[in-house]
This record gives sequence, C-alpha cells and structure tokens, in this order.
Amino acid sequence: MKHIDVCLTPDLLHLHTIENTIVVVTDVFRATSCMVTAFAHGVKSIIPVATIDECQQWQERGYLAAAERNAKRVEGFELDNSPFTYMTDRIRGANVAMTTTNGTLAITKSRGGVKVLVGAFLNLEAIANYLKTEPYDVLVLCAGWKGRVNMEDTLFAGALIDRLKTSYALAEDSAIIAHRLYCDGKDNLINYMANASHIQRLQRLGIQKDITYCLQHDLYDVVPVLRGNALVAM
Amino acid sequence: MKHIDVCLTPDLLHLHTIENTIVVVTDVFRATSCMVTAFAHGVKSIIPVATIDECQQWQERGYLAAAERNAKRVEGFELDNSPFTYMTDRIRGANVAMTTTNGTLAITKSRGGVKVLVGAFLNLEAIANYLKTEPYDVLVLCAGWKGRVNMEDTLFAGALIDRLKTSYALAEDSAIIAHRLYCDGKDNLINYMANASHIQRLQRLGIQKDITYCLQHDLYDVVPVLRGNALVAM
Repeated sequence: MKHIDVCLTPDLLHLHTIENTIVVVTDVFRATSCMVTAFAHGVKSIIPVATIDECQQWQERGYLAAAERNAKRVEGFELDNSPFTYMTDRIRGANVAMTTTNGTLAITKSRGGVKVLVGAFLNLEAIANYLKTEPYDVLVLCAGWKGRVNMEDTLFAGALIDRLKTSYALAEDSAIIAHRLYCDGKDNLINYMANASHIQRLQRLGIQKDITYCLQHDLYDVVPVLRGNALVAM
Repeated sequence: MKHIDVCLTPDLLHLHTIENTIVVVTDVFRATSCMVTAFAHGVKSIIPVATIDECQQWQERGYLAAAERNAKRVEGFELDNSPFTYMTDRIRGANVAMTTTNGTLAITKSRGGVKVLVGAFLNLEAIANYLKTEPYDVLVLCAGWKGRVNMEDTLFAGALIDRLKTSYALAEDSAIIAHRLYCDGKDNLINYMANASHIQRLQRLGIQKDITYCLQHDLYDVVPVLRGNALVAM
C-alpha cells in the first residue's frame, strides 16, 4: 500500500526522504491558493523564486511579478498575494514570477521529489484524483509561517488524507494528527480556526474575503506541477 | 496575560526564545512518565544525560543507571524505561542517571529556560497548579520521536493547555492544534491514538500496560525541576 506522510513545516523537511515521493506543497493563506486560481484563469507558467531581487530580475525580462512579505504586497510589483488579483484577463497566457514569505520557499525546497505539486482546498479533489493514478508515496509539505506550524496548512493536509485514506496508509503521527484535526473541524473550518494566528493577521489587514475564498473545496480542476524551474498546469 | 506555547519537537526549538519562559518537557511514552513515577516513589535525583557513555560514567560513580534506546533497555544498566521499574524500594533516596532516545535530550536542550519542569499525564494537575503561581510564559516542549512530531506528547501539551486556558493566552497555532486535538480525543485517549506510531512500537514490544499507566491523569502530586545538572522534586 502507498503511504502518505505530512511534514508540518519546511523546518522539519530534513526528517523526510523525498526521492521516491510526490511532494504536495500547500500554503493555503495564500500562495498556493493564488497559484491554483492563476492556472484556473489561464496563466501559462509561474516561477517560484526565493528572493525579491530574483523576482525583480524576472520582471525586467517581461514577466508579470508578484512579491509578498508579511502578508503584504512589496512595492514595485504588479501582483500581490490575493487570489482575486489572478482573476483578470491580463493573466491569460502570461508568465509570472512569484515570491512569498513561506510558500515559494517550500516549493524550492521540494525539488528532490519525483514530482512537486501545488495544492490548496481550491483544487483538493483534482490533486487527490491525480495522486490515485500514481504509484508513489506522498508527502504533504505544509509551508507554515516562518518555520512554525500553522493551522490552515495542517488542515489541508488532513483534508487530502481524508480523500485518500482508502488507498494510502498513514506513515506517521503528523499525518494522523492532521487527519484527526480536519475531521474535527471540517464542518465549519472558518469557526474552527477563528483564533489561528494567520487568520488574525489577515483579518487585521482587512482580507476576510480571501480567507473565505481560500477555504472553498474543489473549485478548480487544475493540478500545478513543477517542470524545471516553473510551475505549469498538468 | 501570560502565554502558553507548544514546540512540537526539539527540532523546532530554534524557533522559540526560552530565556523568560518556563519550559515543561514531556515524553509521555515513557521517559517523563518514568521520572514522575520515580520521584513519587522517593528517588532523590535524576541526572538526564545524552549518551550511553555518560550514563555508564555515572553508574561507575555509584548511581543507579537507566539507559534506553529504541524503546528497549540497553544491556549493562539496572533500570529501563518502564515506569514499573521505578516502583521498588531500592529507588528510595537513590540518585539515578538516565538516558533515553528522546526525552533526556529534550531536557538537555531546554537549559536556557527560567525553569525546566518535567511533565506527564501522571502529574498534569501538579504542573498546572505550579505554573499558575508563576509569572512566566510557558513553553511545552514535546520530545517527539527522533525529531518527528508524535501524538502522545502533543496530546499532553493540549491537556496542559486545557487546565491553564483561563489564565494563559495561546501563543501560536501549535498550541491551538494541540488543544483542539486533546479536546477531540480526551474521552478515550487510548482509542484515539490506537494507530499512533509509538503505541504500535510499544505494543510490538508487549508493553500495553505501560501505555495504559502513562495515560492516567493526576496520579502524583510531584513537580520535577532541573537544578544544575539534576532533576529534583520541587
């Protein structure tokens, strides 16, 4: 039987071997929700980069560029880290470079995996269906917040496990914890994580509608995958 | 208001500052459950050491010595990592040196805290009552398993939060996750963690009775604290 495991933050990735594993990176608020939304709206590719400097270099080469730090848009870049930014016509066919506080770094760190996929509640079922067709074990890598574990990414890991539980064994306690947590909270995720740190951070910035949007399940049938240095739709 | 935070594994301790914080180290299966049991049965001091060599050196100086690796007693040492080992007369007044796979290392790593306490379900209420009298923030450090997050230590963190929730604010999502998990599972902890990895490891070794014992709440009114290099009863 295939196994599914969860790495609760990139700071624990050293405990996992990913060579023969498909890595699903998630950063629910909001990097991977943005990426999924962007592909659903016709973006051609997204290059995840670690630094603002790199992002600027791609911008100078004609890419649309998105830079976020501490949940805010960095000045000088067209796009920010709100999924609503990616619902416009100028996205269609565009190549995007993106750097975020947590999500893009998590993708960069996952390069050793058989495949690196980008997951969010928005494309949960698409990811689950794709994984079922593959023979590999799965590691869900939660982007967390500056190395710390967070609620929303852990809940996504639990949600994916819930969709895959009949065809995968749970590898370790992190997976069991994530699954238990999701089952406990799934009937009302927004209430369940009302006191989570990043929810409060986003609410202080007045972006409640992003929260509600990012927690919707199965909105898009799209599976972003890393090919070389860029994400593309599978 | 004071804060309580949870570090889910020693591999994430670099994310926390502990200078002005009381650290409660827990390794439910079974190091800290053993320590609490030992103090409840009259042990004088326990020196937690990182290596088997160090443990042997203390043994040569006349200490009772306990060494465990991978849930089994290391040959040549009197005591192992079962709490039932510590319910005998020879424990009374003894000085013990102890090394275990996860728990003793977590204690060693916590030395920068204002105080380092040893917690288990067995002395949950005693720890909670003591903390309430102190002005400091609290960090629960889960010993985990070789760097990985585990179920039982996370549940202990949640249980302690449950006892302290009216007088402490939850600092971060790890604390919220631990508390949610405990509330979800507390009515039947053994069933709740039936598929947890260390439960299965212990069951393979035939030590079900240790599991049942270590999950009992509030059996002993004892608070082990690190003084210099040794744990003593407060």
